[in-house]
Amino acid sequence: MVQLEAQSLEMRTPQATKTAILVIGGAEDKVHGREILHTFFARAGSTDAHIAIIPSASREPTIIGARYLSIFEEMGAKKVEVLDIRERQQCDEPNVQACLAACTGVFLTGGDQLRLCAVLADTPAMDIIRMRVQRGQLTLAGTSAGAAVMGHHMIAGGGSGESPNRALVDMAIGLGIIPDAIVDQHFHNRNRMGRLLSAVACHPDRLGIGIDEDTCAMVEKDGTLRVMGKGTVTIVDPGEMSYTNHADIGAAEPLSLHNLRVHILSYGDRYHLQKRIVLAPVQRLPQ
Amino acid sequence: MVQLEAQSLEMRTPQATKTAILVIGGAEDKVHGREILHTFFARAGSTDAHIAIIPSASREPTIIGARYLSIFEEMGAKKVEVLDIRERQQCDEPNVQACLAACTGVFLTGGDQLRLCAVLADTPAMDIIRMRVQRGQLTLAGTSAGAAVMGHHMIAGGGSGESPNRALVDMAIGLGIIPDAIVDQHFHNRNRMGRLLSAVACHPDRLGIGIDEDTCAMVEKDGTLRVMGKGTVTIVDPGEMSYTNHADIGAAEPLSLHNLRVHILSYGDRYHLQKRIVLAPVQRLPQ
Repeated sequence: MVQLEAQSLEMRTPQATKTAILVIGGAEDKVHGREILHTFFARAGSTDAHIAIIPSASREPTIIGARYLSIFEEMGAKKVEVLDIRERQQCDEPNVQACLAACTGVFLTGGDQLRLCAVLADTPAMDIIRMRVQRGQLTLAGTSAGAAVMGHHMIAGGGSGESPNRALVDMAIGLGIIPDAIVDQHFHNRNRMGRLLSAVACHPDRLGIGIDEDTCAMVEKDGTLRVMGKGTVTIVDPGEMSYTNHADIGAAEPLSLHNLRVHILSYGDRYHLQKRIVLAPVQRLPQ
Repeated sequence: MVQLEAQSLEMRTPQATKTAILVIGGAEDKVHGREILHTFFARAGSTDAHIAIIPSASREPTIIGARYLSIFEEMGAKKVEVLDIRERQQCDEPNVQACLAACTGVFLTGGDQLRLCAVLADTPAMDIIRMRVQRGQLTLAGTSAGAAVMGHHMIAGGGSGESPNRALVDMAIGLGIIPDAIVDQHFHNRNRMGRLLSAVACHPDRLGIGIDEDTCAMVEKDGTLRVMGKGTVTIVDPGEMSYTNHADIGAAEPLSLHNLRVHILSYGDRYHLQKRIVLAPVQRLPQ
């Protein structure tokens, strides 16, 4: 009920043409309401949208690229292209760069975040994406692995079912679109609180953001994050952390993290990434 | 390394004869160092201890009762009894009451917390235990189901792998030994952060305490909780919670909980249950 109202709210607001960054927790609805994908489509320009799909994270880039292509074409995008980048050298190609310089939306699919970074990080193609996102010329969305790469520090893999410990998470360097964030996805679905806590212990100057499946943290240019979709976005803010034993213990020993601030955000909740506060709830439409 | 030092610290302190409440996250070491069980034994009076084992939570009370009996006998307790209480009426029996009135330690085994409460809650036997714990005459330990019953509100069951939501946790009434706490056990091992958050959303006047396996939250008479064992104790404090949608949504809809205070505590960390603050770390012995 609330979802439908807020969806129509999103559709009716003038904001709907503003660019944004959509960080999606994986397994987003591709069949029914498709609210998250539709919001990406709207923010990329609706029927004026020129969308580039980058399926480089996936082991089956052809299949997954074609799937998103048909979704955005069906929605009525003016132009949709799949940039099937499998090697770093392709990021130097003029047609790739021309597409990224002209498009209004870029969609990073799921798969393996290490593969995605290996192909895209520190390439001219990535420079174009980053610059145009910063300038508000491009709406960027990433789902699953495409979400994981958003931070400077990236969770490359890890486990669950253990006390938080350094060995529970493998860290790598991401694409740095939202540098302050450490993003985890399929979050409560795959029980990843332990590994996000472990990641935050490694990098207590960052903000842990765990995004559930079929859930999106949409980040506006002013730093406001808004939650959309079926699940929750978990914020782990170590800004007031008074103590961690991270530097003093073995990799498999249990971590201490004292005085974390944690927010569980659900549909319509808003959070300011730089101010690190939850914003007052938006007035919802009467039932 | 740290564990051995702290163990010897515990053994050497005069505190070792003070009564305490040991809330154990299940699967405590019964074979090797047995630090948690040994601490219970020490706090119950060491070789002067008279220990009563209550295996009522278990489906195999004879086997589990005999196991703990042999452990505490082997440690050198003066007297160890198994109170194999299977029906509430047994709580009226003079020999049961006499044992509970005389013993210096009571150990509640694992099993099903609903069964344990069904047998013990609001019985004369439980009144004796509660009164003697409050007076500092009795050291009480509970592991797994025996830990779950410690709060007034009790997690009776639930799931994992979902966004926090009301349907993720089944609440019941516990034995109320530590009334302010909602205790969960096998905590990170069974990925129970989601259900503890859901429980805290139901009862935001309480404190969520998640205890990992082979880990103990030992509560002293002054309200200080100290962590012992291999894992972590997670404190979810909603004392400053600014918003929850708990009352406004359907049972399966995702919860919002804004401005939780969360502490991950590991070996030797201390927390004050009434003041709701982490206490300064105890000086550890030089390596």
